[in-house]
Amino acid sequence: MLPVQVRLAMSVIPTNWEKGMSSLVRGTMRGLALAPLAALGALGASAQDASQVSAYVDNSYLFLIGGLIVMFMAAGFCMLEAGLVRKKNAAMQSMKNVALFSVAGLMFWLVGYNMAYPGSTFLSGWFGIPAFIWSPSDSLDTGYASASDWFFQMVFVATAASIVSGTVAERVKLWPFLIFTAVLTAFIYPIVASWEWGGGALDTHFGFSDFAGSTLVHSTGGWAALVGAIIIGPRAGKFVGGQVHPMPGSNIPLAALGTFILWFGWFGFNGASQLAAGTFDDINAVAQIFANTNMAACGGVLAAMILTAVLYKGKVDATMAFNGAIGGLVSITAEPLAPSMGLSVLIGAIGGILVVVTVPLLDKLKIDDVVGAIPAHLVCGIWGTMIVPLSNGDASFFGQLVGVIATGVFVSIASAIIWMILKVTMGVRPSDEEELAGMDKTEVGLEAYPEFG
Amino acid sequence: MLPVQVRLAMSVIPTNWEKGMSSLVRGTMRGLALAPLAALGALGASAQDASQVSAYVDNSYLFLIGGLIVMFMAAGFCMLEAGLVRKKNAAMQSMKNVALFSVAGLMFWLVGYNMAYPGSTFLSGWFGIPAFIWSPSDSLDTGYASASDWFFQMVFVATAASIVSGTVAERVKLWPFLIFTAVLTAFIYPIVASWEWGGGALDTHFGFSDFAGSTLVHSTGGWAALVGAIIIGPRAGKFVGGQVHPMPGSNIPLAALGTFILWFGWFGFNGASQLAAGTFDDINAVAQIFANTNMAACGGVLAAMILTAVLYKGKVDATMAFNGAIGGLVSITAEPLAPSMGLSVLIGAIGGILVVVTVPLLDKLKIDDVVGAIPAHLVCGIWGTMIVPLSNGDASFFGQLVGVIATGVFVSIASAIIWMILKVTMGVRPSDEEELAGMDKTEVGLEAYPEFG
Amino acid sequence: MLPVQVRLAMSVIPTNWEKGMSSLVRGTMRGLALAPLAALGALGASAQDASQVSAYVDNSYLFLIGGLIVMFMAAGFCMLEAGLVRKKNAAMQSMKNVALFSVAGLMFWLVGYNMAYPGSTFLSGWFGIPAFIWSPSDSLDTGYASASDWFFQMVFVATAASIVSGTVAERVKLWPFLIFTAVLTAFIYPIVASWEWGGGALDTHFGFSDFAGSTLVHSTGGWAALVGAIIIGPRAGKFVGGQVHPMPGSNIPLAALGTFILWFGWFGFNGASQLAAGTFDDINAVAQIFANTNMAACGGVLAAMILTAVLYKGKVDATMAFNGAIGGLVSITAEPLAPSMGLSVLIGAIGGILVVVTVPLLDKLKIDDVVGAIPAHLVCGIWGTMIVPLSNGDASFFGQLVGVIATGVFVSIASAIIWMILKVTMGVRPSDEEELAGMDKTEVGLEAYPEFG
Repeated sequence: MLPVQVRLAMSVIPTNWEKGMSSLVRGTMRGLALAPLAALGALGASAQDASQVSAYVDNSYLFLIGGLIVMFMAAGFCMLEAGLVRKKNAAMQSMKNVALFSVAGLMFWLVGYNMAYPGSTFLSGWFGIPAFIWSPSDSLDTGYASASDWFFQMVFVATAASIVSGTVAERVKLWPFLIFTAVLTAFIYPIVASWEWGGGALDTHFGFSDFAGSTLVHSTGGWAALVGAIIIGPRAGKFVGGQVHPMPGSNIPLAALGTFILWFGWFGFNGASQLAAGTFDDINAVAQIFANTNMAACGGVLAAMILTAVLYKGKVDATMAFNGAIGGLVSITAEPLAPSMGLSVLIGAIGGILVVVTVPLLDKLKIDDVVGAIPAHLVCGIWGTMIVPLSNGDASFFGQLVGVIATGVFVSIASAIIWMILKVTMGVRPSDEEELAGMDKTEVGLEAYPEFG
Repeated sequence: MLPVQVRLAMSVIPTNWEKGMSSLVRGTMRGLALAPLAALGALGASAQDASQVSAYVDNSYLFLIGGLIVMFMAAGFCMLEAGLVRKKNAAMQSMKNVALFSVAGLMFWLVGYNMAYPGSTFLSGWFGIPAFIWSPSDSLDTGYASASDWFFQMVFVATAASIVSGTVAERVKLWPFLIFTAVLTAFIYPIVASWEWGGGALDTHFGFSDFAGSTLVHSTGGWAALVGAIIIGPRAGKFVGGQVHPMPGSNIPLAALGTFILWFGWFGFNGASQLAAGTFDDINAVAQIFANTNMAACGGVLAAMILTAVLYKGKVDATMAFNGAIGGLVSITAEPLAPSMGLSVLIGAIGGILVVVTVPLLDKLKIDDVVGAIPAHLVCGIWGTMIVPLSNGDASFFGQLVGVIATGVFVSIASAIIWMILKVTMGVRPSDEEELAGMDKTEVGLEAYPEFG
Repeated sequence: MLPVQVRLAMSVIPTNWEKGMSSLVRGTMRGLALAPLAALGALGASAQDASQVSAYVDNSYLFLIGGLIVMFMAAGFCMLEAGLVRKKNAAMQSMKNVALFSVAGLMFWLVGYNMAYPGSTFLSGWFGIPAFIWSPSDSLDTGYASASDWFFQMVFVATAASIVSGTVAERVKLWPFLIFTAVLTAFIYPIVASWEWGGGALDTHFGFSDFAGSTLVHSTGGWAALVGAIIIGPRAGKFVGGQVHPMPGSNIPLAALGTFILWFGWFGFNGASQLAAGTFDDINAVAQIFANTNMAACGGVLAAMILTAVLYKGKVDATMAFNGAIGGLVSITAEPLAPSMGLSVLIGAIGGILVVVTVPLLDKLKIDDVVGAIPAHLVCGIWGTMIVPLSNGDASFFGQLVGVIATGVFVSIASAIIWMILKVTMGVRPSDEEELAGMDKTEVGLEAYPEFG
């Protein structure tokens, strides 16, 4: 990890040189796109300044617009999850999503951002010095408005929290869930992010490559969700007498809306992760990322639909189609730039297949994942990360494996500790009677749909 | 009020100078961001022109993208309100929101815009010369495409109209409501806006400060809603025998969606109200506004949730959480730039608390506000406006108070006159039988959910 | 059709000159906005390069942001259609919309884009040489990132497919529909688009003018929908005993949401079709398009509402208000720039009236259009196209008529052939029992709202 002063000084080095150097990109040596005016260098310092300001504005704008689009994914997760829970838990699930986005914002300001981008790190880059309460500090040399970066990173951490929310729905109490969310967004996710985007161990020692976060965001959320599902246990009545009892979602059109909103948001998630858009090369990259991201989602949807049609006598499970889209999107997130469009379709399609295959597998293991977030975010996150070396020569299978395992081990252990503490101290589940009555009545005090049926 | 020619000439003065001068900003002497190229001034007139064009494009783009994001808030209000009314009025409420956005657009073109930004004013700046039918007129010297400004202002007036719609839901007939909307968007809101953003009395004589419209937009809508609720009266059966009869919303997930859409739209509402984004200072300001806006919403949600949990034996009212977000957002709207992030959390949190406290107070006063718009938009609008001097030294408590009172007095009286005229002439309420049957059947002729329950 | 090399060379010619020359715009000689720096031409080649890069970035950004906004229209169509079908078909309709967007993306990559923008054409420009599998190829001289253009065009083809989906809802099987979608998006739409935007016959020989696709996109979808509705036949029970049996939509608030999302998306659809935003003239044009697009929608809503109130004893059909918005938007799409705002209101209002008049006409003809897509997209598409010469002197009624007829004849015949082949081979309809049970049960295997009513 370089001292801050050196990093700032280096941050004005042109994009390509910096890119060729390492993946020390996000949050540390972000690609400062030299604006068109660079060609006017002969005009001297004033033109150079103008060029820097222009790039600064462009980069900040990209973070703000990209971040805004990703922010809307919170609405997407909310709709997907509200649509896939039963009627008696839909108000709780809706409120929980509003609440978790609020908790994530607060904690990432209080602790998370400074954990993820620490001034210096210990333990060979596996742990940074925690600092508290982030505040903006703007300098032309960083290449972007500091609050635009904070905003862009904050919406990523909220995504990780939303993933957990879906898996453990319908049987976790509100406050324990929000406390877990606070720890996840203040410490667990930021530590993982620091390994790579904060210039830590994965980046420095292993050449790990995860463009927009298949592992760092989606698998992190997925591991936390998996461990939560195991420790909390399945919904009452889900696995009884060796049988799996289907508990169908209450509002499929809302789940479709959620899927489309996530798809929409993913263009910001992957596209703005190029981190610069002001040069010929950067804008071409962003455009390619848009196209590849879309192709992977298309592949995921159609592969999931065709496979379910084959498996289920011609019937196509709509929720599999939706999760196929998400699985395809997660799969391309680790490397949305390098693959061709055809390879993107393939990567996404295998993601869609993994979703269809993993959902019943979880049922067999009696792990109750209400919305299918573990297949879509964890399994596809691993898949997407491991396939990066196929298209990106800078990544190695070994480096990718280290990143996947490190994330899995750390997030699982940390999540297990937190969930266990919550279970032992305040309890994470409602009583069986309360669960049967529904969380809306017992935790929210109103019903999602008081007049429907 | 300066003559038009002087204003145009002044509009090319650099941002900072202009900002230090007065708050004669929006619509009159809009900050013309001198683009990076300004540093090339030595190159002479052609570089100056290029710089002007670049700033012109950037500013217009900000209005169009910002306006588009704010336009989507119309969908947010529609979902929030459709979710919080009863099933029998949900189609009416949905249609009313589509209709009011249409009326607002038409009236702001026919009258409103020219009322808000009159060429000159009378009565010490309290009233401008009304002109009819706005049409675009583009000049490089204004610093932005005229239609981009019209669009951005138009979506603000639609917001004010949406606020009224929510409060008076379930018992006002369609056409009287739309006529009120027409008057509100053609005259009432534009006159209030002219006092500040049109360079009128509040701006010129009192140094009133309201960055994106806590008072000018949200309180204006809130006062009109309050007066409407009083004159129209409560829903049949709401307050009977000294009791408050809860009439729970029919679709809480839709209300959550509406909340998220409004939160999303608020980044355009506050962020684009910086009115320029092409310089180091301006883009830093926009980024800071994004961060502060988000923090205030987070504070509003969590404060409202914690307070309801304390008040209601551990249960958290989902609609309070949603209105807490909106209350926090309204509270920060008067000054989203100057506060620190911590202060933004606090301002938003107090907004959330005000919502929770005011909702039962309205019930005690037998004022029936179906969606809680009066607490969120009026009460928090006043709060947000009055707290501005704490972070922004240019504002005074006296000046803020004058703005709050002037808006309250004028909007209340004007709204009362219009609602009374409508009541006496065409009648504003359906018959009791019609109200009992629901507005969907009597006014729309179809049901929102014909097959649900 | 000019050879590729010539087109590339010409593409660096300034916007105005190019515009005055012909409508050879979209995809061939796209207006390359000379950026502000052009004024610095005296600085020589480096400034010229900087100017080119700046315009390249601006144009690509416009396609990506515009395309993203249009992409979200897929969610709008999904909500509109899911809200207007009956409960038993709402999951199917939701899934079908996710699936068709996926098929459209795949086919437009495999075939469609190269069909629409062929290197050279035969048959006097009526047919291009088909090429397979599009891949990006970026050159500064084209003026935009190739993948940004692909993405922008792809979301347009998805729009055409969504139109068909709504009309033939509730009685067409999943796979035949998706096969039709594949042919529509790979061949039918691209061939039509090639006539105009690919520099084919309509553009070269007839001076046809269709700014953003009233005919090329909306009527194409509308003709395919009309022919599909005729060949597939009405829903069981719709027209029995000479009576029209209403089959009301199951979720009107979702339909309102869909309407607002489409309205939102239309600013990208029309605004970004200016294809450049980096100059004084271009950004003024985009702003004017935003304002006009909005006014047309306002006109459409209010005209439809007033007319239904007159026709139906004071009741206002909410679905007519929604389709009035869409009809107004389609009507202005052929020429959203040239009309004044007042004329835009009028064009949209007549579109709204056409919707109200055409819906019962289709019923009389026993053509079953579930969501009213034929009135809104086909009828208003023709209207909007034919009225172009009123405001745009470059267009002639004859040229417009040729475009309308050519599109109608070709799309109808091609669609009829495909629908007939599907009917004869695999069958397009479920059995009567399956249709009665609902497509959710028979094709999807789950219910949209298992707990509602």
